[in-house]
Amino acid sequence: MQRYLLVVEYIGTMYSGSQTQPHTLSNTSKYINTVQDELEDAISTLTKTKIKTIFSGRTDAGVHSKGQTVHFDCNLEIEPRKFVNSLNGILPDTISVKSLRKVENTFHAQRSAVARYYRYTIVNREQRSAWDANCLLIKYPLDIEKMNEALRYLIGVHDFSSFKKVRTSNPAKICKMYKAEASKQGDYVYIDFVADRFLYNMIRSIVGTLLLIQRKSLAPETLKDILEARDNTKAGPTISPMGLTLMEVIYNNNIDGESL
Amino acid sequence: MQRYLLVVEYIGTMYSGSQTQPHTLSNTSKYINTVQDELEDAISTLTKTKIKTIFSGRTDAGVHSKGQTVHFDCNLEIEPRKFVNSLNGILPDTISVKSLRKVENTFHAQRSAVARYYRYTIVNREQRSAWDANCLLIKYPLDIEKMNEALRYLIGVHDFSSFKKVRTSNPAKICKMYKAEASKQGDYVYIDFVADRFLYNMIRSIVGTLLLIQRKSLAPETLKDILEARDNTKAGPTISPMGLTLMEVIYNNNIDGESL
Repeated sequence: MQRYLLVVEYIGTMYSGSQTQPHTLSNTSKYINTVQDELEDAISTLTKTKIKTIFSGRTDAGVHSKGQTVHFDCNLEIEPRKFVNSLNGILPDTISVKSLRKVENTFHAQRSAVARYYRYTIVNREQRSAWDANCLLIKYPLDIEKMNEALRYLIGVHDFSSFKKVRTSNPAKICKMYKAEASKQGDYVYIDFVADRFLYNMIRSIVGTLLLIQRKSLAPETLKDILEARDNTKAGPTISPMGLTLMEVIYNNNIDGESL
Repeated sequence: MQRYLLVVEYIGTMYSGSQTQPHTLSNTSKYINTVQDELEDAISTLTKTKIKTIFSGRTDAGVHSKGQTVHFDCNLEIEPRKFVNSLNGILPDTISVKSLRKVENTFHAQRSAVARYYRYTIVNREQRSAWDANCLLIKYPLDIEKMNEALRYLIGVHDFSSFKKVRTSNPAKICKMYKAEASKQGDYVYIDFVADRFLYNMIRSIVGTLLLIQRKSLAPETLKDILEARDNTKAGPTISPMGLTLMEVIYNNNIDGESL
């Protein structure tokens, strides 16, 4: 049995999240399929065997990917270039495979990951554009410097309970944040987060809080106060998944390492 | 009566072209509406009067816009910012209005235009990506220098019959090409055309021919020979509209003038 690792891109708008959930009502709408459903269908078709995939982690409904990692086991000898080509031929337009490679059987897409890099993309201008489907429009001007002053308080090891959805069943609340940084390119504002792990809806809650701080011209320290409160009633609204993209899953204990 | 000029963006994939056609079967599919239908519906809703619009020219089914210009006449005094905001609130996601301004009643979106700027966008890599919906994937490597050698033969005043669809009813075949140039940015190849006018399907026929020349490693002079033949059976295939975008309509006899 050989283990293979895929890097998968998708536009999340049309999918009910990355991973198959027991409660997914796949017969109510053609858009409610998950990325995992589509991917497993395509791989199974090509390999002519029933393939199960393991994702690095779940991305919520509407969240996009430029670097989701997925492993699967298969008896067949797969030629990477040809297989990726064939997969991209049968996957829906909104899902694509960037690469495939053999990995050791001890490698695990989720458990071997040491960090994840997410980007939240905002377009900051007065009018929406038909061309900006996969980012969030914010009409009031954003102050990148002040955003970064606030985001710096998140760096390091913290209890992120304040940015955790109540309904999560995972009791762990401690994350190590390596990077939390805003940057601007033309009308686009990117907010990048790298951490060993993220709690359910954590980035959307942080960005929602950050935008509330900006809109109300509150002090950047407000984010620090909310973080330290360890109380999710203090956070701002959980923002739309529209602008959120999983950029990269990092392995090998090296967050500056070579991209997959 | 006041005349207003709009600059309109759209993703053409979902529309059967920019302008309402007598033969449009708008009841057969929800995607067969034209951009003009949607725009006139939205303006009419806001102004509470039946508004007719004049486009700078027709873009084919599937062609996108970042700078289509449209004029309309209206009795009402319209406040540009507020009106654009309201229009963007009710237009479909894939159509947006960039700006609105008052113009003289002698101004005409189509007849006052002195040039049009179109861009054909190609992504030149081995695999498609879910993120590249609005450009054409070409897998074999493109040689930008050779492309430009060929494109230079199009500059100036020429009879473009070779790149004209047979079924067009317009007898005029002479166009003045100001710019025909390929450039590269990362994996993206842009082919820019500026001319006083373009024949029906002309850019798609030129790009199709240019790609055929590249794929078969023919001499750049081949494009010159095809142009001079004035015979549309000599041209390569008409390429997909997927990568074609109307970037700007130029007025005021100044093709380097300020953008609208």
